[in-house]
Amino acid sequence: MENVITPWDVKGDIDYDKLQSKFGVKPIGKVPKELADNILFSRGTIFAQRDFERIISAIENKKPFVMMTGLMPTGKMHLGHMLVAKQMVMYQKLGAKIYICVADIEAYHARQQSLADSKKIAIDDYLTNYAALGLDLDKCDVYFQSERSSDAKKTNSYYRLQNILARHASFKEFEAVYGEISPGKMISALLQAADMLHAQLPEFEGPIPVVVPVGIDQDPHIRLARDLVERTKLFKFVQLSSTYNRFMPGLAGGKMSSSDPTSFIALTDSPADAKKKINKYAFSGGQATVEEHRKLGGNPDVDISFQYLSYFFEDDDEKLNQLSSDYKSGKLLSGEMKSYLIDKLTNFLTEHHAKREKHLAAVTKKFS
Amino acid sequence: MENVITPWDVKGDIDYDKLQSKFGVKPIGKVPKELADNILFSRGTIFAQRDFERIISAIENKKPFVMMTGLMPTGKMHLGHMLVAKQMVMYQKLGAKIYICVADIEAYHARQQSLADSKKIAIDDYLTNYAALGLDLDKCDVYFQSERSSDAKKTNSYYRLQNILARHASFKEFEAVYGEISPGKMISALLQAADMLHAQLPEFEGPIPVVVPVGIDQDPHIRLARDLVERTKLFKFVQLSSTYNRFMPGLAGGKMSSSDPTSFIALTDSPADAKKKINKYAFSGGQATVEEHRKLGGNPDVDISFQYLSYFFEDDDEKLNQLSSDYKSGKLLSGEMKSYLIDKLTNFLTEHHAKREKHLAAVTKKFS
Repeated sequence: MENVITPWDVKGDIDYDKLQSKFGVKPIGKVPKELADNILFSRGTIFAQRDFERIISAIENKKPFVMMTGLMPTGKMHLGHMLVAKQMVMYQKLGAKIYICVADIEAYHARQQSLADSKKIAIDDYLTNYAALGLDLDKCDVYFQSERSSDAKKTNSYYRLQNILARHASFKEFEAVYGEISPGKMISALLQAADMLHAQLPEFEGPIPVVVPVGIDQDPHIRLARDLVERTKLFKFVQLSSTYNRFMPGLAGGKMSSSDPTSFIALTDSPADAKKKINKYAFSGGQATVEEHRKLGGNPDVDISFQYLSYFFEDDDEKLNQLSSDYKSGKLLSGEMKSYLIDKLTNFLTEHHAKREKHLAAVTKKFS
Repeated sequence: MENVITPWDVKGDIDYDKLQSKFGVKPIGKVPKELADNILFSRGTIFAQRDFERIISAIENKKPFVMMTGLMPTGKMHLGHMLVAKQMVMYQKLGAKIYICVADIEAYHARQQSLADSKKIAIDDYLTNYAALGLDLDKCDVYFQSERSSDAKKTNSYYRLQNILARHASFKEFEAVYGEISPGKMISALLQAADMLHAQLPEFEGPIPVVVPVGIDQDPHIRLARDLVERTKLFKFVQLSSTYNRFMPGLAGGKMSSSDPTSFIALTDSPADAKKKINKYAFSGGQATVEEHRKLGGNPDVDISFQYLSYFFEDDDEKLNQLSSDYKSGKLLSGEMKSYLIDKLTNFLTEHHAKREKHLAAVTKKFS
């Protein structure tokens, strides 16, 4: 299959080295202990960056910075989405102010979803999950694209930025970045650029380092926003920083996709459903029979259960390495790898659902 | 010269009957006394309309309605701009709420003018002129596109509308309406559609008849906004009404243009400068010599001084008819027609400048 990567589509096998050279991003390099302690960094899930030194410096010198991200409130929040949520929690603990944009205007244009439906999904699912994962929403600036703020000065300045940015981009550029465009996609792209940049307006934080952690497929958005920073001398924006994470693989391989429930574990899936999905759909790196597996061993690099353990569910490097070598040697069977993940996932989901229960009412009250 | 009419360009001689059939607008028809008393209506300066019955009905039944208009704060406010200003004053007296949009975002995209410059020009020139012409700005909703309101609910709903409308228009349509487009022109067009429609949002007046008086060259904007009303069933918008006025001719004929000071009389021109401009530039419908003029007579239909008297400066129909027949018969010379206009204009400008003095500080304070 052709390797297709645009913000709208990810298909085929991903060659991360090629991506780095194609998109011009840099390897993540050495990071300070505060970041290296997080398995997302230490295991290379976050593998590339642009201008990330600025953020490292802010962390090391305890200077203010912003982490900005968005959520598309269509479909269920799944493990793939947890990649960024984990980073929100981490950066908040490191002193960052977290900006979270609910992309309801983008959902309206790209998915024809009503603003009311977007609001409900954002609150019930995503925001409540963030709170349950340990994010203090009271310290974040969470907003809907269709309703920026209850402070008119902020609201005006946010949309003003969207309107002004239009002068500094061309149709050709939108097409080069997005492929086929429509007025809806174009206005969404401009709003998304405003999302990434407006934290630096005087009505918000003023010029400040901002990091936007994304999947590599989202880099065109970052590039456009960065180009706009270069061109609009009106504002004294600090150039955007970004980090890039690998795609969380779907259960059968490929990308985890909201539109295919057999590809993902949702954070609201019951442990029983999660177990069923793992057993039924999770691609295994093992051999066809137990005999062959014992003889030839399995391949943890393509084994989805091992991957999920590596992304999130096995913190302990030693234990993870043991699983890997036992799998390769044939000592650990595919079913055993699945069981190991299912146990971890069951604990996680059970605890997570209890935390959701604890937070749901407050989150609903705060954002309704 | 080819007859070119787009919102960006007006060239050549205008065939108003053809325009009516080409653009599908209807003749203005019979209007009630409240409107017929205004020479803009009685003399056919306002000559066409769409769905204007709704506004007539509101006037006759003393029901609420809105007049919406915009000003482009580039260059000086001149007599051509006074056409709409006179209508603001008239509709306000008839009970309409007047919405006035300062199109500073459009000026940013179409003329590369900074928002700060737009603000200064809007206040010093246009808004102060409106007040001097008798408009009660305290009863109007005057706003800048870059800063809709100090009420966040209103602000959010205005820009939300702009963003939502993008889904319901196509690039083809923007191209058909505007010719060549750019991201800036497109986002301006969407904002202008929001300008025309947002008065009907629940945060503003709710569904209500809205009339937008424009020059016929602006009809593509009206058509686009009306098409959007048909397509976005989300909102219970009453279909827009519009009226169309003839172009105020420039001093040498053609359109009065802000970018050519020899084509217009500004409302801030001194009476002495206005006199000089009339004498030097105003196209005359008279003959080359006094002798020929006495024998053949002049043509008031192309005489700019007579036109200006007809548009604004001679209220008295009988007197105007007398000027016309005396001109045709050769009794009245071109220089005398100019002198007649210059007297009227001198009185108008002198009084107008005194009124500007009276209003300037308050207008500046209100909008700065």
